[in-house]
Amino acid sequence: MDSKRYLQYFGLDLFQRAPSRTKEIFNVNPTIIPAREEAEKVRIFAYDYSNESCSGKELSNIEETYGFKENGHVTWINIDGIRKSDVDAIGEVYGIHPLLREDILSVGQRPKIDDVEGVIFCLLNMLYYNENSFTVESEQISIVLGKDFVISFQEDASRDVFNPIREKLKYQQSKVRMRGADYLCYTMLDLIVDNYYVVMEKLGDRIELLEEEVIRSTSRRTLAKILVLKKELLALKKNIAPVRELISGLLKSESDLLDDSTTKYFKDIYDHIIQAYELTENYRDMMMSMQDLYINNINLRMNEVMKVMAVVTCLMAPATVIGGIFGMNFDHIPELHNKYGFYIAVGLMVVIPIWMLGIFKKRGWFKI
Amino acid sequence: MDSKRYLQYFGLDLFQRAPSRTKEIFNVNPTIIPAREEAEKVRIFAYDYSNESCSGKELSNIEETYGFKENGHVTWINIDGIRKSDVDAIGEVYGIHPLLREDILSVGQRPKIDDVEGVIFCLLNMLYYNENSFTVESEQISIVLGKDFVISFQEDASRDVFNPIREKLKYQQSKVRMRGADYLCYTMLDLIVDNYYVVMEKLGDRIELLEEEVIRSTSRRTLAKILVLKKELLALKKNIAPVRELISGLLKSESDLLDDSTTKYFKDIYDHIIQAYELTENYRDMMMSMQDLYINNINLRMNEVMKVMAVVTCLMAPATVIGGIFGMNFDHIPELHNKYGFYIAVGLMVVIPIWMLGIFKKRGWFKI
Amino acid sequence: MDSKRYLQYFGLDLFQRAPSRTKEIFNVNPTIIPAREEAEKVRIFAYDYSNESCSGKELSNIEETYGFKENGHVTWINIDGIRKSDVDAIGEVYGIHPLLREDILSVGQRPKIDDVEGVIFCLLNMLYYNENSFTVESEQISIVLGKDFVISFQEDASRDVFNPIREKLKYQQSKVRMRGADYLCYTMLDLIVDNYYVVMEKLGDRIELLEEEVIRSTSRRTLAKILVLKKELLALKKNIAPVRELISGLLKSESDLLDDSTTKYFKDIYDHIIQAYELTENYRDMMMSMQDLYINNINLRMNEVMKVMAVVTCLMAPATVIGGIFGMNFDHIPELHNKYGFYIAVGLMVVIPIWMLGIFKKRGWFKI
Amino acid sequence: MDSKRYLQYFGLDLFQRAPSRTKEIFNVNPTIIPAREEAEKVRIFAYDYSNESCSGKELSNIEETYGFKENGHVTWINIDGIRKSDVDAIGEVYGIHPLLREDILSVGQRPKIDDVEGVIFCLLNMLYYNENSFTVESEQISIVLGKDFVISFQEDASRDVFNPIREKLKYQQSKVRMRGADYLCYTMLDLIVDNYYVVMEKLGDRIELLEEEVIRSTSRRTLAKILVLKKELLALKKNIAPVRELISGLLKSESDLLDDSTTKYFKDIYDHIIQAYELTENYRDMMMSMQDLYINNINLRMNEVMKVMAVVTCLMAPATVIGGIFGMNFDHIPELHNKYGFYIAVGLMVVIPIWMLGIFKKRGWFKI
Amino acid sequence: MDSKRYLQYFGLDLFQRAPSRTKEIFNVNPTIIPAREEAEKVRIFAYDYSNESCSGKELSNIEETYGFKENGHVTWINIDGIRKSDVDAIGEVYGIHPLLREDILSVGQRPKIDDVEGVIFCLLNMLYYNENSFTVESEQISIVLGKDFVISFQEDASRDVFNPIREKLKYQQSKVRMRGADYLCYTMLDLIVDNYYVVMEKLGDRIELLEEEVIRSTSRRTLAKILVLKKELLALKKNIAPVRELISGLLKSESDLLDDSTTKYFKDIYDHIIQAYELTENYRDMMMSMQDLYINNINLRMNEVMKVMAVVTCLMAPATVIGGIFGMNFDHIPELHNKYGFYIAVGLMVVIPIWMLGIFKKRGWFKI
Ligand SMILES: [Mg+2]
Ligand SMILES: [Mg+2]
Ligand SMILES: [Mg+2]
Ligand SMILES: [Mg+2]
Ligand SMILES: [Mg+2]
Ligand SMILES: [Mg+2]
Ligand SMILES: [Mg+2]
Ligand SMILES: [Mg+2]
Ligand SMILES: [Mg+2]
Ligand SMILES: [Mg+2]
Ligand SMILES: [Mg+2]
Ligand SMILES: [Mg+2]
Ligand SMILES: [Mg+2]
Ligand SMILES: [Mg+2]
Ligand SMILES: [Mg+2]
Ligand SMILES: [Mg+2]
Ligand SMILES: [Mg+2]
Ligand SMILES: [Mg+2]
Ligand SMILES: [Mg+2]
Ligand SMILES: [Mg+2]
Ligand SMILES: [Mg+2]
Ligand SMILES: [Mg+2]
Ligand SMILES: [Mg+2]
Ligand SMILES: [Mg+2]
Ligand SMILES: [Mg+2]
Ligand SMILES: [Mg+2]
Ligand SMILES: [Mg+2]
Ligand SMILES: [Mg+2]
Ligand SMILES: [Mg+2]
Ligand SMILES: [Mg+2]
Ligand SMILES: [Mg+2]
Repeated sequence: MDSKRYLQYFGLDLFQRAPSRTKEIFNVNPTIIPAREEAEKVRIFAYDYSNESCSGKELSNIEETYGFKENGHVTWINIDGIRKSDVDAIGEVYGIHPLLREDILSVGQRPKIDDVEGVIFCLLNMLYYNENSFTVESEQISIVLGKDFVISFQEDASRDVFNPIREKLKYQQSKVRMRGADYLCYTMLDLIVDNYYVVMEKLGDRIELLEEEVIRSTSRRTLAKILVLKKELLALKKNIAPVRELISGLLKSESDLLDDSTTKYFKDIYDHIIQAYELTENYRDMMMSMQDLYINNINLRMNEVMKVMAVVTCLMAPATVIGGIFGMNFDHIPELHNKYGFYIAVGLMVVIPIWMLGIFKKRGWFKI
Repeated sequence: MDSKRYLQYFGLDLFQRAPSRTKEIFNVNPTIIPAREEAEKVRIFAYDYSNESCSGKELSNIEETYGFKENGHVTWINIDGIRKSDVDAIGEVYGIHPLLREDILSVGQRPKIDDVEGVIFCLLNMLYYNENSFTVESEQISIVLGKDFVISFQEDASRDVFNPIREKLKYQQSKVRMRGADYLCYTMLDLIVDNYYVVMEKLGDRIELLEEEVIRSTSRRTLAKILVLKKELLALKKNIAPVRELISGLLKSESDLLDDSTTKYFKDIYDHIIQAYELTENYRDMMMSMQDLYINNINLRMNEVMKVMAVVTCLMAPATVIGGIFGMNFDHIPELHNKYGFYIAVGLMVVIPIWMLGIFKKRGWFKI
Repeated sequence: MDSKRYLQYFGLDLFQRAPSRTKEIFNVNPTIIPAREEAEKVRIFAYDYSNESCSGKELSNIEETYGFKENGHVTWINIDGIRKSDVDAIGEVYGIHPLLREDILSVGQRPKIDDVEGVIFCLLNMLYYNENSFTVESEQISIVLGKDFVISFQEDASRDVFNPIREKLKYQQSKVRMRGADYLCYTMLDLIVDNYYVVMEKLGDRIELLEEEVIRSTSRRTLAKILVLKKELLALKKNIAPVRELISGLLKSESDLLDDSTTKYFKDIYDHIIQAYELTENYRDMMMSMQDLYINNINLRMNEVMKVMAVVTCLMAPATVIGGIFGMNFDHIPELHNKYGFYIAVGLMVVIPIWMLGIFKKRGWFKI
Repeated sequence: MDSKRYLQYFGLDLFQRAPSRTKEIFNVNPTIIPAREEAEKVRIFAYDYSNESCSGKELSNIEETYGFKENGHVTWINIDGIRKSDVDAIGEVYGIHPLLREDILSVGQRPKIDDVEGVIFCLLNMLYYNENSFTVESEQISIVLGKDFVISFQEDASRDVFNPIREKLKYQQSKVRMRGADYLCYTMLDLIVDNYYVVMEKLGDRIELLEEEVIRSTSRRTLAKILVLKKELLALKKNIAPVRELISGLLKSESDLLDDSTTKYFKDIYDHIIQAYELTENYRDMMMSMQDLYINNINLRMNEVMKVMAVVTCLMAPATVIGGIFGMNFDHIPELHNKYGFYIAVGLMVVIPIWMLGIFKKRGWFKI
Repeated sequence: MDSKRYLQYFGLDLFQRAPSRTKEIFNVNPTIIPAREEAEKVRIFAYDYSNESCSGKELSNIEETYGFKENGHVTWINIDGIRKSDVDAIGEVYGIHPLLREDILSVGQRPKIDDVEGVIFCLLNMLYYNENSFTVESEQISIVLGKDFVISFQEDASRDVFNPIREKLKYQQSKVRMRGADYLCYTMLDLIVDNYYVVMEKLGDRIELLEEEVIRSTSRRTLAKILVLKKELLALKKNIAPVRELISGLLKSESDLLDDSTTKYFKDIYDHIIQAYELTENYRDMMMSMQDLYINNINLRMNEVMKVMAVVTCLMAPATVIGGIFGMNFDHIPELHNKYGFYIAVGLMVVIPIWMLGIFKKRGWFKI
C-alpha cells in the first residue's frame, strides 16, 4: 500500500497538519530572540467621547494620537498592526512602561494583568473559530486602561469582536457613553469573553458530530479525529484558563482607575469565564468517554471476527481428521466396503461440528 | 447486518439520543446571541404574609406586584415563565440591577450568588429525574432576596419543589410565618437541595441495576449503558458543584438582609450540599469500578472461547498428520498390511491428543 | 453452563450482595422523605459523676433525664435507639436546636460538627468489622456537649465502643473523673477513632490475604474479590474523611465549653485521624497495584497458552503438507517406489518442525 | 508445573515476602490494643556539655538522668530501647505530657510535631536501606526538646544516624558546643533527613538496574520487580511526606525554646525535605514509565510471535489444499497422468505461498 | 537474534544511555557524603560600575575580590568553578552564611531562595540543550545579592547565558548601568528564564518531529523515543517548577536590598516562569496523546494482519475438507466416476470460500 493510501486508510491524513498545528499552539516568546514580525500595515482609530459628544475617525499616523491625552473626554485608541516604533512612541506619551511594551510586542504571551505606574494593562487573546481548518484561532490583544483613555493593540486589522461597542458609541443614551474609561474597558473584556462561548459552541457541535460517528461507524479514522479535536481543546484551555486570574486581578484591584460601581460588572465577566473554563473541562471528560467507547467498539468487533474465524476453523478440523482416517491406505479398514460407509463418514463430518456448535452455544460463547 | 440491527447488537441504539443530550448538557449562554425564547405564558403568584395574616393569590399582570413593596409584610412573588419585559419591569421597581436581570434571562447559567445594590441574588437549578428518558432534567430558578421580599423566577409553570412552603404558609404557627424574608429564602434553597437527593437516589437505583447487569450478563450493551449513565452524572455534578460556593457565599455574607440567627440554617444546607457533591464523586468511582469489571469479564470470556478453539484445533492437528502419513502412496509403508494397522493409527489419533490434554492440564492452562 | 455455575466460575457470585451493599453505602438522607424507622426499643443510661462520687443507672423513660440538668455534676446520658419524640423531648430541655435534632434523626448523615446556641454537636459513625460478610458496618452516633453534660444518641443498643469509659468512671483516680464534660467528650471521640484502626487492621489482613492469592493462584475470581474489597475501602473512606474536619473544627473552636487544657487531647485525636485517612489512601494504592499485577498475570498466562497452541499448530502444518504431497494420485511421483521413501517423508515431517523449533528458540520466542 | 517452579517462572517468588512486607508497611497503632513489645534491654547515654566542658557516659538506670535537669549545661539523653516504665519515669521528671509518652510508646506512628506544656516534641522515623532484602527499614525516634535538654528515644540500640554529633561534641570549637539545645535538636533532624538521601540513592540505583533490565531482557519477572520496588517507594513516601509538616511546624513555631537565629537552620532542612519528597514523586513517575515500556515490550514480542505463527500456518494452507485436490479419488482428474503433473503441483505449493508473502510484505505487515 | 540486533529491532538501543541519564537527572545531594568534586580551574571576573564608570577584568585570585566591598560602586563578581576554599574565603568577607555556602557547594540542589543575615541568596539551574545527545543539560548557578554587590558562582567556565549583560555594561545609557545591584540581579534571572524558552523550543521541535513519526511510520522504535523524550521533560520540569517559588519569594520579599521600583521587573519574570511551567505541562499532555495514538496504531495494524491470516486460514478449511472427502478410500463414493466430478469438487472449493467472503463482507468484518 503506498504511503498516501496508508495514511488515509488509518485516518492519519487528518494529522497532516498536526505537527505544524502543534507548533502554532506551543508558539513561545523568548524575548531574547525577537519572534514577532513588524506589521506591514498599521491602522489607527480613535474614538473621543463624553456623554455630550462622540467623534470616531481613522488617524493617519501615531503622532495624531497624542492630542487626546487629558482633553477631558474618554478616548479609545485602537491600533491594528503592531510595530515597535509605534508602540514605543505612544507608550512614551501615554506612560506605558517599557516592560508592558515588551509584552505588547511579544507573541504567544500568556494572558496577564499588570498595574504599572498608573495604568492597568490587560493582555489576552481574542478567539475565532476557523470553519475551514476546524481550528481555534487566536489574536492577541493588549488593553491599556489609563486616566480617561483606553488604548488597544491588535494584530489583525481585518477582524475583532468590538463592533457592538462601535455601534453603542453612536447612541448618547448607551451606558458606555454615560460612564468612564473603566466601563469601556469592561465592555471590551465582556465582548472578548462572550466570544469565547461562540467558539466553544462550535467546538461543542464538533464534539456532537464526533460522538455520532463513534456510535455509528467505528471507522479506523475516528481516533485520529478525537485526538485532533483534543488538541483544539488544549489550545482553548491554554487561552481561557489564565483569563480567570486576569479578571479576578481586576476584581481585587484597588486602583483608582476602577470606579467601585464597576466592580459588579467585572464580577459578571468573572462568572462567565469560570463557566467557560468548566465547560472546557467537561468537553475533555466527554472526549475521554468517547475514546473509551471507541476502543471498546473496536475490540468488540475484532473479537467478533476472530471468534467466528476460530470457530469455523475449529469446526472444520474434525471433518479433516475423518477424511484423513478413511483416506489412509491400510488394507483392513472397516466399513470401506460398506455401501453406506461414505455417507456415514460424511454424516459424521456434518454431525460432529453441529454437536460442537451446540456445546459452544450452551456455554454462551456466542453471547459476549 | 443492516445499520439498525447493528446498532442494537452492540447496544449503540442506547446512544441514539446521546449527541442531542450532549447538546442539552453543554447548552451555553453567549449573551451576545440571545438564546432564551420568550415564555408564551407567564403566571405570577404573590404570597403576602406576616405572623398575623397571610394572603396568597395569582396576579394577572406584572404591575400588580408593585403594591407589595415596603408594605410591612413579607412578600413572596413567584413568576413562572420568563419574559424580558416582565423581568425589566419588576426589576426596575424592586431594584434588581440590569446585570442580574441578564442572568435571570440567560439559559444554562452556572449557579451563582451576587450581592448587588442591596439585594442578594441566587441563581441555581432545580433538578428532576425523568423516569422515561432516564435523564436528569433541570429548571433554572433565580431567587432575589430584598428587604422584606423574595422574588423567584422559574422557567416552567407546571412544576417546582416549593409545595411544602405553600402548605406551611397556611399555618400561623409555622416557622416560616414567624420569621422574615431570609428564612423564606432559606426554606426555598433547602427544598431545592433536598430535592437533589431525590434525584440522586433515582440515579443510585440505576447504578445498582447496572451493577447487577455487569455481574450477571456481560452483554455487549453494558458499556453503552455505563457511558450513558456517566453522562447523567456529569450533568448532575455540573449542577451541584457550584451550589457549594453559592451556599458558602451566603454563610460568609455580611449583608443586613440575613439575620445572624439564620446562619445556622444555611450551615445545615451547606452540610447537605457537601454530602451531595461527595456522593456524586462516589457514584463516579463506582462507575469506574464497573467499567473495569465489565472489560475484565469481556476479556475473560473472550480468552475462554479463543483458548478452547485453539486447543481443539491444536489437538486435531496430530490426527491430521497421522491420517496424512498413512494416506501417502509409497509402495512400502510399514503396517499397511497389518490387520490392526488401522486401529493402531486411529488409536494414536485418540491417544496423542489425550496425552497432550494431560500435559496442558498439568501446566494449569485451563485454570486461568 | 447454568447461571449459578457461570457466576461461580468467574467469581461473580462474590458480587451477589454487591448491589444491595452499594445501596447500603450510598444510603442518603433526603429530609423531605423521612428515611429512619422509629426504634422499637429505647434504652437510656445516665452516669452522673464528679471527682467525689459517681452514679450510673438505666433510666426507664426520657423524663428521668431532666433532673440531671445543672445539678453541679458532670452527666453522661447515653440513649440507644432513636425515636423522634424522645429526641424532641430531651432536646427541648437541654437546648438542642431543632436543626440538630433533625441531624440526629437522619440516616446516612455525613460526619459533621456544629456549634449552635451554646452546645457543641458532633455527629459521626462508629465502625465495626463484620467477620461474616467481610463488610465495614457503621452505626451513627450523635454527641451533644453542653455545660456539664454530654448526651449521646446511638442507633443500636447491642454494641458501641465505650466500655473502657464505663470502666474508668468507676475509679475515682481516673482522669475522666477528675475533669469536666469536655474531657468525657474527648474520650468518646478518641475511642471511636481508635476503633477505626481496629477495623482498618482487619481490612489490612484481607488485603494481605488477597495479595497472597494474586501472587499464587490467579484464579478468575480474583478481580471480583479486589473490586469487592475496594468497595469496602470506599465505605471506610466515606466515613473517615469528614472526621478530619470534625476534629479540626473542635481544635479551632473557641467555645467556652472546651477548656484550653483539653486542646492537646483533641490534637492527639487529630494526628490519629490524619494517619487513618492516609492509610486508607495507601490501601487504595495497594489495591491498584494488585489489579495491575492480576491483569498482567492473566495476560502472561493467556499468552503462554495461545503461544503454545499456535506453535504446535504451526509445527504440524509442514507434516500435513508433506502427507498431502505424497498422498496425491499422480502417476509419476518420485521416490514413491523407493524402499525408504516413506521413511524419508516421515523423517522430513519430524526434522522440519525440529528445525523450525530451533529457529523459534533462537529468536527468543519462548522467553517472553 | 509444580507450584514453586510456577512462581519462579513468572517471577512471583519475588513476592514471597510481599504480604508480610505489606503488613510491616501498614503497621498501625491502635492505642486500645497495645502493639509495642517492651524492650528487653535498655541503654541510656547522657552528654552534658557547655562550651567549656563536655562529659559523655552511659548511665545504668533511668534515675541517673534526673540529675541533669536545670544544671546550667545542655544535656542530651539518648535512650535506646523503649519501656513504658522508663518513659513514664523520665517523662514525669522532665515534664513530658502523658499524651506524648503514649506517642513515644506507640508503633508505626505518623511523623508529627507537638508543643505541649513547655516542651517541643518531634516524632519521626530514621530510615536505613537493607542491602539483603532490598527494603527500606525504619526506626522510630522521638525527640523531646526542653529548656537546656534534648531527650531522644530510639527503638534499636545497634544503630542510629547520630555518630557525627558524638564526634563533634568532642571538639570545643564545634558549632554544637557553642550553641544551645535547639541547635542540637536541629543537628539531629538534619542528620536524619540527610540520611533519607542515602536511602533514596540506593533506591535510585535499584531503579537504574531495573530500567536496564526492562530495556534488555523483558523477562516475565520484570513486572514483579517493578511492583516490589513500587512498594518500597510507598514505604519511603509514607515516612518522608509528613516530615515536611514537622519541619514547617518548627519553622512557624513561636516557642521560646527555639532561638530566632536557629530558624535559618530549620529552613535549610526544610529545603532538603521538600527536595526529598519531590524525588520520591519523580521516582514514582519513572516506575510508571517503566511499567508502560515493559507492557509495550511484552505486547510487541507476543505480537511478533503470534504473527509469525499465523503467517506460517496461513502459508501452509494452500499447499494442504493442493495436496487434497490431487489426492482425491475421482476417475478423471486432469494432469494426473502428466509426467510433470506432480512437479507442477508441488511447484504451485511453493509459488503460491511466495506470492502471498510478497503481498503481505508489500502491505507492510512485517514492519509493525 | 543477537542482543545488539534485538535492541535495535525494538528501538531499545535508544535507551542505552537511559539508566545513566536517570542517574544524572536524579543526582541528589546528601551533604553528609560530599558529592561535588573540587573544580580544577577557577576563573574570577569582576565588573565594578556606576553610571559614570565601568571596569571589567579577570582577577587572578579570590583575595582580589575583597577590595570591591563597599567601594560605592555596584560590583558583579562572577566565579566560574567551585572550590570550597574560595567559597569560604569570599563568603567570610561578603557575609555569606555557612549554610548558604553549603548550598553553593552542593550538587543537584533544588532551586531555592533565602534571605539570611542581610543577603538574598538565589540558587537555580541554567539550562542548555545538547544537540548531540538530545538532552537538557543544567549548570547550577548561585546568585548572592548584597548591598551594592552581586556574586555569582557557576560550575562551568565555558558557558553561561550572561553575555547580553556583559554587552550592556559597556554602554553608559543602558538601564543596568543606571540602576543598582537589584536590577543586575533581575537581569541575570531574566536571562536565565528567557533561556529556558530556548531549551523548550528545541524540545518542542523534537515533539513535532516525533508526532510526525507517530503519524507516518509506527515503527517499533517509536515508544522508546516517546519515553526518552518524556524523561527530558521530567528533567525540565524538575528544574523549572521550583523557580516559580523562587521568583514569587523575591516578589513578596520585604528586604531593603530590593528597591520597590524593581518589583515590576520581577513580576515580569514571574509571568514568564509561570508560562514556561504551563508549557511543560502541555508538552506532557501532548506526549500522552501521542502514546495513545501509537498504541492504537500498533493495535489496528496487528488486528489487520491477524484478521487477514485468520480469514485466509478459515477460507482454506472447507477446501481441505472437500479434498479429504473425495480422498477417502470407500468403495462406494458418489460421483467418483462422474466425468465432471473433479471439476465440481474443485468448483465447490472455490465457490464456498467466495460465498463465505461475501457473508464476512456483509457483516462488515473488513471495515474495522
Ligand atoms: Mg527581558
Ligand atoms: Mg513581559
Ligand atoms: Mg505560548
Ligand atoms: Mg496565542
Ligand atoms: Mg483585530
Ligand atoms: Mg458577558
Ligand atoms: Mg454582556
Ligand atoms: Mg451575568
Ligand atoms: Mg451550561
Ligand atoms: Mg441548566
Ligand atoms: Mg417551575
Ligand atoms: Mg435540607
Ligand atoms: Mg429541611
Ligand atoms: Mg489481545
Ligand atoms: Mg435512601
Ligand atoms: Mg441537617
Ligand atoms: Mg451517607
Ligand atoms: Mg452510616
Ligand atoms: Mg450502639
Ligand atoms: Mg487515640
Ligand atoms: Mg487514647
Ligand atoms: Mg498520640
Ligand atoms: Mg514506621
Ligand atoms: Mg537506634
Ligand atoms: Mg542537611
Ligand atoms: Mg548538614
Ligand atoms: Mg542547604
Ligand atoms: Mg537532584
Ligand atoms: Mg541540576
Ligand atoms: Mg558557566
Ligand atoms: Mg524575560
